[in-house]
Order: sequence, then structure tokens, then C-alpha cells
Amino acid sequence: MTNNCVFCAIAAGEIPSFKIYEDENVLAYLDINPFSNGHTLVIPKAHSSCLLDSSDDSLAYVIAAVKKVANHIKTVLPCDGFNILQNNGAAAGQSVNHLHFHIVPRFGGANDNIEFCSQKGDMEELKKLAEKLRMI
Amino acid sequence: MTNNCVFCAIAAGEIPSFKIYEDENVLAYLDINPFSNGHTLVIPKAHSSCLLDSSDDSLAYVIAAVKKVANHIKTVLPCDGFNILQNNGAAAGQSVNHLHFHIVPRFGGANDNIEFCSQKGDMEELKKLAEKLRMI
Repeated sequence: MTNNCVFCAIAAGEIPSFKIYEDENVLAYLDINPFSNGHTLVIPKAHSSCLLDSSDDSLAYVIAAVKKVANHIKTVLPCDGFNILQNNGAAAGQSVNHLHFHIVPRFGGANDNIEFCSQKGDMEELKKLAEKLRMI
Repeated sequence: MTNNCVFCAIAAGEIPSFKIYEDENVLAYLDINPFSNGHTLVIPKAHSSCLLDSSDDSLAYVIAAVKKVANHIKTVLPCDGFNILQNNGAAAGQSVNHLHFHIVPRFGGANDNIEFCSQKGDMEELKKLAEKLRMI
């Protein structure tokens, strides 16, 4: 665990999160400022700052978990498709320096555009959605 | 190789591309309608349609290649950061049904926004850039 890392604190359970999936190496939880309904983050529990700071073995494990969680989300929501987004550096919009993959469900509607407009989440709705989607 | 798949044809060399990296299993080449300067696609040579259609072993190989190529692009361009984007389904903006990861370099400038506005590429400029970035 790295000091002052919010996602390390979430992985350690020191900060609560709307968990979707967890195993010994990874954690998946809802983004509280979602781009779309079901927007989920997948992180390794061991700290690395970004893609380039991660081992190939760690990335292999995390991308397999991303697939597993995305498949679950697509089936359970359901959604028409989804984007995987992973940002590296402040210039790319990375706001927390702990490797994370976004799973952004897409629904093909009129208000479903490619701009990924963030919106403030409703805590109660997020809690319900987490319960609906939880695999653990 | 899958019939009528443009990326299979690119991987087979039947359609030309601005290659950045290639080994026995993967190919990386510039997107000809780039979101930003240096926008690159990384694909497995063996066909799979999307994330959910890919084996864990294939994904492990491809994400390691994405890291390798992104590190190279970041160093050589250079750029301030980069996004990894991988779209699944037409509703998510997937236009070619062959698994591909976008590497989108970011530069932190006034015209560098998160909306990923696509622009038509200049073939000559792309050719020069491919030569600059090529690792093979």
C-alpha cells in the first residue's frame, strides 16, 4: 500500500466503495461520478501508478478481470456495448495515480454520446446498482 | 484470417498500413483518422471480434504489447500522457469487429480535449510519423 493513495485505501477497505468484484489481486467498483449507468473501475490491489509502471504479469491478471467483470455487467444490466478506457498522466485525464481501467457501458440512445460526459452520481441509486451487479 | 475483416487483411499485409510494431502475434499501426498526433492501434493477428471474444492468453499478450508500444510512443514523440481505449460493439463506437486497442497520445494543450475529436489524417504526414516511430 502506498501512502496517500485513495485507491490503495479503497483496496484496503479504509475508504468504502460500491464493490462489484474482488479477488486476492483485483477489485472492481462503481465510479461515483459515472460517465454512464454501470460505469465501473477495475484496479490491482498492489499499487502501480499507470500502465508503464505495471508488470506484464499484473496487466495480464487485470485485463482478464476486466473481461470477466465487463461480461457480467453487459449481461446483467444489460447494455448494448461498452468502452474500456485507461488513462495515463494528468494530460490524459488521470486523476488518481493508481492503475485503473474504466468499464463504460453504452446504450445506443440519443443521450449516449462518445464525449463521456461525467455526471455526479446519486449515492442511493449507486448502492442499489452495486447490489444488483455484485458477484461476490 | 476471417473473410471480409479489414484488420485481418491489414495483418496479412493485403491492405497497407503505417506499421509501428509487429511480432508473430500482434501488429501496431497508426490510425488514419487520428484523435491526436501518434494515435496508434494495436491488434492481435489472430481474429477475435472484441474483448469478450478473446482468450485471456491473447489479451495478456496484447496488453503487454500495448504497454511496450505506448512506452515507445511516449518517449519518441514525446507526449505528456496517453489514453488506452478499447471499444466493444457499435453502441460503443466499435467500427471494425476485430479486437483493437487505441493508444491516444495527449499533449495537454488548449486544443487537447477529452472529447477525442477525430480528424482526417494527411497520408504524407502519417507516413513520416510512421517512419519516425517504427521500432521494426
